[in-house]
Amino acid sequence: METEQIEESPWLALTESSERGDSARITELLESLSCADTGRAFANLKPEPRRKVLSLVSCGLAARVLETLPEAQAADLIDCLDAADAAAIMNELPSNEQADLLALLAEDHAEAILARMEPEEARIARRLAAYPADLAGGLMIEEYLRYPAHARVGDVIEDLRTNHERYRHYDVQYGYVVARDGRLVGVLPMRDLLLADTQAPIRSLMIEKPLNISVDLPLDELRDVFEQNPFVGLPVVAQRDSLVGVVRRVDIQEALEDRSKSDHLKSQGIVGGEELRTMPVLSRSGRRLSWLTINIVLNIVAASVIALYQETLEAVIALAVFLPIVSDMSGCSGNQAVAVSMRELTLGLIRPVDALRVWGKEISVGLINGLVLGLLIGAAAWLWKGDVRLGVVVGTALAINTVVAVSLGGMVPLALKRLRVDPALASGPVLTTVTDMCGFALLLSIATAILPAAGS
Amino acid sequence: METEQIEESPWLALTESSERGDSARITELLESLSCADTGRAFANLKPEPRRKVLSLVSCGLAARVLETLPEAQAADLIDCLDAADAAAIMNELPSNEQADLLALLAEDHAEAILARMEPEEARIARRLAAYPADLAGGLMIEEYLRYPAHARVGDVIEDLRTNHERYRHYDVQYGYVVARDGRLVGVLPMRDLLLADTQAPIRSLMIEKPLNISVDLPLDELRDVFEQNPFVGLPVVAQRDSLVGVVRRVDIQEALEDRSKSDHLKSQGIVGGEELRTMPVLSRSGRRLSWLTINIVLNIVAASVIALYQETLEAVIALAVFLPIVSDMSGCSGNQAVAVSMRELTLGLIRPVDALRVWGKEISVGLINGLVLGLLIGAAAWLWKGDVRLGVVVGTALAINTVVAVSLGGMVPLALKRLRVDPALASGPVLTTVTDMCGFALLLSIATAILPAAGS
Repeated sequence: METEQIEESPWLALTESSERGDSARITELLESLSCADTGRAFANLKPEPRRKVLSLVSCGLAARVLETLPEAQAADLIDCLDAADAAAIMNELPSNEQADLLALLAEDHAEAILARMEPEEARIARRLAAYPADLAGGLMIEEYLRYPAHARVGDVIEDLRTNHERYRHYDVQYGYVVARDGRLVGVLPMRDLLLADTQAPIRSLMIEKPLNISVDLPLDELRDVFEQNPFVGLPVVAQRDSLVGVVRRVDIQEALEDRSKSDHLKSQGIVGGEELRTMPVLSRSGRRLSWLTINIVLNIVAASVIALYQETLEAVIALAVFLPIVSDMSGCSGNQAVAVSMRELTLGLIRPVDALRVWGKEISVGLINGLVLGLLIGAAAWLWKGDVRLGVVVGTALAINTVVAVSLGGMVPLALKRLRVDPALASGPVLTTVTDMCGFALLLSIATAILPAAGS
Repeated sequence: METEQIEESPWLALTESSERGDSARITELLESLSCADTGRAFANLKPEPRRKVLSLVSCGLAARVLETLPEAQAADLIDCLDAADAAAIMNELPSNEQADLLALLAEDHAEAILARMEPEEARIARRLAAYPADLAGGLMIEEYLRYPAHARVGDVIEDLRTNHERYRHYDVQYGYVVARDGRLVGVLPMRDLLLADTQAPIRSLMIEKPLNISVDLPLDELRDVFEQNPFVGLPVVAQRDSLVGVVRRVDIQEALEDRSKSDHLKSQGIVGGEELRTMPVLSRSGRRLSWLTINIVLNIVAASVIALYQETLEAVIALAVFLPIVSDMSGCSGNQAVAVSMRELTLGLIRPVDALRVWGKEISVGLINGLVLGLLIGAAAWLWKGDVRLGVVVGTALAINTVVAVSLGGMVPLALKRLRVDPALASGPVLTTVTDMCGFALLLSIATAILPAAGS
């Protein structure tokens, strides 16, 4: 009976156990849940039991739970704890996770937590958090094998033996060799230690002048470096070639996934970072409104074009049916072109200077699709009212506006990028405003010219 | 002068060299370009020089070029080669890349290439291509360290020495130990070899009953396994625990990124896989149209609601201005909720059974945002026509429709998922059709009831 209930709704079991203060049961429950189930359970928990569940388990388990959750949700959980509890859990997290979470918290809360963390942990977290998350410095880790240039093979093997536990989850394909002043001087393929004499200096085995990455190299260039080189990790250097960390291929992949996810959310009007339904209603609603209110103003501007043709509309009221269709279909056609451009921008296949080439390529697609969509809507209008001229008006307007929307849609992200406006956020609203205005003007002015009732 | 020109437009230099048949120059050019520049250069090349460039360089270089390009673009390039040239290049690619590319080609072309590849390479590629790309079998690699259970430490070290070159880019943290019948019996932490006697059997060092993954484990569960365990790779087993490959954390990350990218493209109406502007116009246009034609039919259905209220529109022609605004704003509000649900679905935070909970959470956001947007548009209508009743009609319609759109938007992806329809593809069209119909009906029926000119 009990196990069945747990499988059905672990959050209920967690709520009950937290009310009873039964930390053993909570520990057992959390350890038995998969990541996804843990996430769902915390999403269902009310704020008070959520806080209580975390404070009733060991810091190590709480940290493991936080690591499995989406970052925004983990930051939410940290947010509901007091600074001392939060700091104790943060101490148990790897350095790059600490930095990522701290970046998502309000500044004063983050400071309060840092002040209560172990000084060394806090120092590293501060250092990593100082770099923007899309530069090598913000993506690197501090957990890597580092040896002085004067060490011998035997010293390294001794170090591996001594720190066996600490290195358990390090990447141990390469060790990084530094001079006395911290300069990176070489990379040591650890497998070569197997074949070497323990008395040999590691200098003799290391690869000199290794490929390295500057601490301020941006994500796009990091992706290129990793695509062109097969390494699982690369050393990161700051001023005067001093070794400050290692970026791993897997972290670059994760950052790229985060970016495409965030671009997707922005293009759908979710701004200011990820939204989860565990967040308070007012903050969710406010963030969505910030984008919606700009959009409603743009919508009013676009629709005001219709008001200029009131007489035409009065004469041929059937046109009103086609206004939303022209608006929506042009938006769809244009957004397809936006999506392709956004993707090609991300892949580095196009740059703002390629705007004209993109425009040319999209015009051919726009012409074909405009023709097909224009014929479809024209036929529908003709069949509905039995008036071939209405069909011609509606079909021509949609056909021309599709060409405009598609060719413009391909260029808008490039133009916004050049203007240093985030294309993921602004492409949609900019495009639909222009295509709406253009579509309404086309439909109503062609109607004024061609339809006898409207022209009179 | 010459280098300047190359930096400006490498594709021009490639075109010229390919016309001269200057393979040395092409090799030099391709080796000097960054990934992004290579991608841009091939995007600019016309089909004929594109084919020629690839056939003029060594298969190894051609393979390296293909590896740096986006998969859809690489498949395009393979497509323009004849089967023998393509097979020679494919032989040089790692097994999982071969399988991925073959999956993107037309079946008969893929078969023609496989028939001309080296038999062993073709066998492995076929085997990997047989698994769907979102299961462990489709994500695993065949390049890993594999040792028989009866081997000794010295044998392994000897193997590492002999195959030094081949193993250069293998992950060498763990070796996988198999019984005579191919069963996975253990995992060998390679670093432990450093500390062991060369005569010791590897059985004595290996971790027995290691964590392993079934060949048909889906991507979502793989993500969970890797989130809960810190390993860089895990062994994949088929029937009777036989070891068939290794999935690496980095490949899971890449697959997750591919999926969010593809969901994003689908939500914007790019269907049937990635679209690049190097593809032929007709196929790009056709794929976009397949989605647009469904959309235009849905649009006509939705707008037909307007036709039912022709008299009301004739009486208060100003309402025509607000039809596209209500349609567009409801679509925006609803799509925000769709985006949040899609994200929470991907993260496993919600499931179809949570539809009611999601509905409840979205209703509160919908009420607040509906109130604000309704007031804004109502005020605009009032100011424009000086008629407070017009403001009330328009504002009330948008307010109610926002609640409908937001609460529905949160649920639509869950409902589609339960119906086994791809929510990334269908959520937008389904949502906007319903909210358009509802919005038009609300606006025009409230107007019929309240506005004296319309009611008469």
